Amino acid sequence: MEKVGIVGVGMHRFGKFPDLGLTEMGIEACVQALLDSGLDKKRIGVCAVGNVGGGMVVGQKVLAELGLAGIPLINVENACASASTALHVAWSLVASGCYGAALALGLEQMSRTIEGTIPLGTDSLELQMGMMMPGKFALVARKHMELYGTTLKQLAAVSVKNHHHGVLNPFAQYRKEFTIEQVLGSPVIADPLTLLQCSPTGDGAAAAVLCNVREAAGVSQPPVWIEASVLTSGTYETGPRDVTSYDQTRRAAAAAYEISGCGPEDIDVIEVHDGFTISEILHSEDLGFFPKGEGGPAAESGATSIGGKIPINPSGGLVSRGHPIGATGLAQVAELVWQLRGQAGQRQVDGANIGLAHCMGGLVQGLDAAACTVHILKR
Amino acid sequence: MEKVGIVGVGMHRFGKFPDLGLTEMGIEACVQALLDSGLDKKRIGVCAVGNVGGGMVVGQKVLAELGLAGIPLINVENACASASTALHVAWSLVASGCYGAALALGLEQMSRTIEGTIPLGTDSLELQMGMMMPGKFALVARKHMELYGTTLKQLAAVSVKNHHHGVLNPFAQYRKEFTIEQVLGSPVIADPLTLLQCSPTGDGAAAAVLCNVREAAGVSQPPVWIEASVLTSGTYETGPRDVTSYDQTRRAAAAAYEISGCGPEDIDVIEVHDGFTISEILHSEDLGFFPKGEGGPAAESGATSIGGKIPINPSGGLVSRGHPIGATGLAQVAELVWQLRGQAGQRQVDGANIGLAHCMGGLVQGLDAAACTVHILKR
Repeated sequence: MEKVGIVGVGMHRFGKFPDLGLTEMGIEACVQALLDSGLDKKRIGVCAVGNVGGGMVVGQKVLAELGLAGIPLINVENACASASTALHVAWSLVASGCYGAALALGLEQMSRTIEGTIPLGTDSLELQMGMMMPGKFALVARKHMELYGTTLKQLAAVSVKNHHHGVLNPFAQYRKEFTIEQVLGSPVIADPLTLLQCSPTGDGAAAAVLCNVREAAGVSQPPVWIEASVLTSGTYETGPRDVTSYDQTRRAAAAAYEISGCGPEDIDVIEVHDGFTISEILHSEDLGFFPKGEGGPAAESGATSIGGKIPINPSGGLVSRGHPIGATGLAQVAELVWQLRGQAGQRQVDGANIGLAHCMGGLVQGLDAAACTVHILKR
Repeated sequence: MEKVGIVGVGMHRFGKFPDLGLTEMGIEACVQALLDSGLDKKRIGVCAVGNVGGGMVVGQKVLAELGLAGIPLINVENACASASTALHVAWSLVASGCYGAALALGLEQMSRTIEGTIPLGTDSLELQMGMMMPGKFALVARKHMELYGTTLKQLAAVSVKNHHHGVLNPFAQYRKEFTIEQVLGSPVIADPLTLLQCSPTGDGAAAAVLCNVREAAGVSQPPVWIEASVLTSGTYETGPRDVTSYDQTRRAAAAAYEISGCGPEDIDVIEVHDGFTISEILHSEDLGFFPKGEGGPAAESGATSIGGKIPINPSGGLVSRGHPIGATGLAQVAELVWQLRGQAGQRQVDGANIGLAHCMGGLVQGLDAAACTVHILKR
């Protein structure tokens, strides 16, 4: 396997842009990533594109406008983990030696193509009965509170922190501070989760340019290396189980730690899939950063804020930076690349050398997610 | 790069099955492919799934039922080339050494999820004006007739042949003979293309089990080797061009011939993307089997029938076997595997040692396709 580096990242700001074209946002992210890399675009040998609701051959429409048409392109769908799956595919195609350089893009325009909390199809009795994402994670939150004593204030602290981080991020959908009281006082979506504890729908795009060591010789700045790229899917086991822990996250993290030779203690900054405040807490535990039940107190103590012991979601996370589902995974990676290069401006995490991005998506049955990725990046 | 073999294939019959579940058809194809391979399903390390209209995380729903949940899964979309792109992804992940064995699946249920000739989105003026697939290929047919003297009878001969082949294929959507007169007398869809010259909408699934040389030691029968797996996308060049020739087919074929060391003269059997009768003619030329303009006379002469010089679409092709768009590419490959193993029954091509599958999908702008694959298989 070849060593693969990320040599350029770019984003179209997340937000609600119903009057833009989806392709337009994708082009902006790719152009920025290519400019950032300094790599001649003709070196790009393959492209992987994550998207959910944009219809057929979305990626090709972007490439055509970029002047990159003709190269192999793989459109990828893994629900909320579509962009990070595209990164995994691009990584594997460079790591394998098939290509010297690749472009990974994630894009979504939920304001035009996807409404609300996205039922997976009308054949699911669960969904027909209203058991969509907020309902599922509300149950998980209640169980986490029961088992570990996690409090409403701790849940709200995740939202306060991520909104504070989002204020510092020019690419974030929401750039506004909120207090614990405001978070808890916002409308209830699925008790105990209030509006400000749920990731919003939105539009946007994010891209990364990847290459092997030889191609990296010609780039603008030192690569951020992909030390591990792991994709898992859910096991959808039925029967009694611990709903406050995600098996596919634990498996992906264990594999990523083994491949990279890093453990949670070596990681300086994390982007984690905070679809809801409770998600950040339980994923931060499943990823090994805190013992089970200590994710909530950690958020409340400031340990997961920029300047804290282990900053989580300096970008603002899904809750504040936003969550255009096909773009999120690469927005996380763009944030880590900026952090590891020391280019994150006001939200810079001091001494960030190693970062971890965790993304998950899709519900098939029960509480398991359909796809989960963990990427470990090192400067 | 590791050598990769196909060790099992399976299909759910193509047809119109609005009362079945999409997942159900996918499971049937996978179960058949796994049984055919004799490989322990626990050896499968990764899965790539081609689908267009089935919604989010389609593949995971199939894996869950197969007892394969948990392994990395990549849902892939490249319009009518989705299944062959899934095969390309699965091939690349085994060829790279990332995994020892992979499952590739393509599935679609157009009778429930996709209507008619699928506009790519309402933002295309071309599509709004009715310039969908039949219209585009009707223009191409007229130009081919003007440039090369291709006749209506030659176009119809492709349909007569493919319907005859379809009669011999238990997995085909249509199993009925037609005469030249019946083909030309069927309703006009887009002049000069009549109903029986157009691939139908339909439902179905096809799957393949791939593995490297080491894993192949434990399988039921000798692998069919993937000598080349090539994916290209269109260049969407505007301005005057020859609309009777597809640049992305020519580039994919040239690369596949170079990688495999085979030329058209070495190929014994072909599955080609006959979305319309004219498509088979022009692709058979672009793939190098006939000089430009000789594809029509070849079809009329019987050279492309089973028993002819170079049999094309012994499965019945898209026109007769059917074209559930996310499944087609792997149905082509299943047919070639059966042919190369000598298991194609009444439609067996004598002495078939090397086969070629060509698939293409999607329109972005003008007449170029979005994605094109060429696979060369050898027993």
